[in-house]
Amino acid sequence: MPPVEPRPFDVFSPDCPSREAWEHATGRWGALVLGALAHGPLRFRALGRAVGGVSDRMLSQTLGHLERDGLVHREDHGTNPPHVEYSLTFAGREVAGRVLALVEAIHEVMPTVMAARSGK
Amino acid sequence: MPPVEPRPFDVFSPDCPSREAWEHATGRWGALVLGALAHGPLRFRALGRAVGGVSDRMLSQTLGHLERDGLVHREDHGTNPPHVEYSLTFAGREVAGRVLALVEAIHEVMPTVMAARSGK
Repeated sequence: MPPVEPRPFDVFSPDCPSREAWEHATGRWGALVLGALAHGPLRFRALGRAVGGVSDRMLSQTLGHLERDGLVHREDHGTNPPHVEYSLTFAGREVAGRVLALVEAIHEVMPTVMAARSGK
Repeated sequence: MPPVEPRPFDVFSPDCPSREAWEHATGRWGALVLGALAHGPLRFRALGRAVGGVSDRMLSQTLGHLERDGLVHREDHGTNPPHVEYSLTFAGREVAGRVLALVEAIHEVMPTVMAARSGK
């Protein structure tokens, strides 16, 4: 019998486990959080400032998803006052690099977007 | 007086017009729609099948946003029965290329994600 080829991952399929990881890494805030962490570790407050408009609740939930998926590492230094830092894992850096490339693409097409919106 | 430099676009700023374009192009379905159209024009039904799990209502809304932003072009051939096709504009192709690179990154890190989720 030929060996069973593992089914490749496919975010376009709603049943693939990669779909959930995709939604965490893109989604409402996931991509911006990954992009903000691409420049180095940040504490919760600093991350909230870097990702303009995110609420504490959404930031906390987004970080929870990304941490559970192994893309973000949460480091609690166990000090008092508490010092907790968030950073990208190796896998997180892979994804964040592509996120920043997508950010660049959006910035680059903005003149086209603005013109389209104004009906030009 | 020195010339006034135009303020650069910044998706990390909630007040920048690029934030809305970013949310349309990522968001719940935007990125998958762009990615699905990267392989060529598709009719509504075919696009719905390519982006597994999307409802007609959400697909229609997503396409509306992307069309308004000038990333997707809607071509109504004016025939009976109707033949309407969606395709990427030049700007849409720029963005879709980066989306597919992000899709690839997610697929590549999935072994890490699966291991993290199972607590390994």
